[in-house]
Amino acid sequence: MSRNLCIAVSYDGTDYYGFQSQPGGQTIQDKLEEALLKLTGEAIRVTGSGRTDAGVHARSMFINFYTDSQIPVQRWALALNARLPDDIVVHSAHEVPEEFHARRNAVRKTYRYTINCSKYPDLFRRKYEFHHHAPLNIDAMREGLHYLLGEHDFSSFTSPLSTKPHHVRTIYEARLETEQRADGVPTLWEESDTLRYPGKRRGVFHLYVTGNGFLYNMVRIITGTILQVGEGKRTSRDIVEILNARDRSHAGPTAVPHGLTLWNVEYGEAFRLADHL
Amino acid sequence: MSRNLCIAVSYDGTDYYGFQSQPGGQTIQDKLEEALLKLTGEAIRVTGSGRTDAGVHARSMFINFYTDSQIPVQRWALALNARLPDDIVVHSAHEVPEEFHARRNAVRKTYRYTINCSKYPDLFRRKYEFHHHAPLNIDAMREGLHYLLGEHDFSSFTSPLSTKPHHVRTIYEARLETEQRADGVPTLWEESDTLRYPGKRRGVFHLYVTGNGFLYNMVRIITGTILQVGEGKRTSRDIVEILNARDRSHAGPTAVPHGLTLWNVEYGEAFRLADHL
Repeated sequence: MSRNLCIAVSYDGTDYYGFQSQPGGQTIQDKLEEALLKLTGEAIRVTGSGRTDAGVHARSMFINFYTDSQIPVQRWALALNARLPDDIVVHSAHEVPEEFHARRNAVRKTYRYTINCSKYPDLFRRKYEFHHHAPLNIDAMREGLHYLLGEHDFSSFTSPLSTKPHHVRTIYEARLETEQRADGVPTLWEESDTLRYPGKRRGVFHLYVTGNGFLYNMVRIITGTILQVGEGKRTSRDIVEILNARDRSHAGPTAVPHGLTLWNVEYGEAFRLADHL
Repeated sequence: MSRNLCIAVSYDGTDYYGFQSQPGGQTIQDKLEEALLKLTGEAIRVTGSGRTDAGVHARSMFINFYTDSQIPVQRWALALNARLPDDIVVHSAHEVPEEFHARRNAVRKTYRYTINCSKYPDLFRRKYEFHHHAPLNIDAMREGLHYLLGEHDFSSFTSPLSTKPHHVRTIYEARLETEQRADGVPTLWEESDTLRYPGKRRGVFHLYVTGNGFLYNMVRIITGTILQVGEGKRTSRDIVEILNARDRSHAGPTAVPHGLTLWNVEYGEAFRLADHL
């Protein structure tokens, strides 16, 4: 009898053309389906909790698929990892109700965008964070993020290539957290920065954005716009005007993909099968 | 008039054949000298605070070199970074006394070896830590490390390829620290581990070893041996027997290079020119 399995996957998106299958096969979905074919002998199509763009990473992407395989559920993670490249790792597998759908049943998603505005890049994290060479006004950025909370039409914050029929989404949380990076390399000449960049700070900052759904490029455009607020090119209050314009040309640039990670996906009570599902 | 400059460099060793220059040019030293040539027009030879093997990383390697260039010292880091690949980053530059020598004046060196024995690898750090799939007896490892402290003949802990005339070195510190990794992916089924691996633990552990100097492969052989203690294949007390044997064949295997990072190099009071020099 066919079972519905849900798997938590993390991946380093650096070398992939995004999640969704494409001719050429260099996508996360293609690699997962290849590994499933090797493991089960079945031509399985997986459903992801969403898509990620080329170069974007995932800490917890969920996928579900149907299989006739009788392999016990607790064996799937190790068995798939042995058949996956080392930049894709399965962390858990659960049997879920037949009707569970990894995309349609997702109720909240969280993305994280990491901005390192230390004087020099942290080379050990260079593929997972954006290095902004100058300090930023973090307080102004936090104030700007506040205007994004709640239900809005996010047409200004999506690519003109969006194929979605409507652009109203709800953002539940948008916060900028400071990382205390204990193993960073100490750098000098920070005193001169204080004079050159009044009100601005250096450091490593994680922008976490949680919402009920995200449009194409939405988190990257939010990041690119809020970076302009941090640079002093815009005020935090400009976010309101940008939202009201409902026009992509009013917002800032699309931030580079490699700083972005799909952080977590949450499902409703009906599908709360494990601590992190 | 020629100046002696000392520069702090970090690098990701993944794609290099180690620090020291080789025909073919794919070494850290070659890349630094190419960048110096581009910047100054001078064919400069640099002296590193030591060598690192192929695949080994550095957080703080120091190099010194002589130059006739009049570029102000505070400009060197940015100017070199613009001419270096993105897996090599210069963090600071100082003018040092004419007699300063980055290798001969180094009084203490610290290496860090990172062991991740979580159930699944952390793919965002996979190039900088060794994934050990099973839990380890951390207390036994700590006890074993204790026997390495002080002055010993480390012949058992060096490659037979060592060219050094004598193998007596002093280890000042050898400690295993637990990392609280906040951004890891939670994994399940840890309860069964407790039954299967009594006395052992999962987690991320950094082995920091500080000494007055290190022999060829020394930290990697220490790590490979102490891992056997953690696995229960040897007792911590075996470390004493291995030291006394003064024979490489008594120690454990050489741990893989990618878990190792040259963490810091310290210079004596005479050359303490900056906080981290």
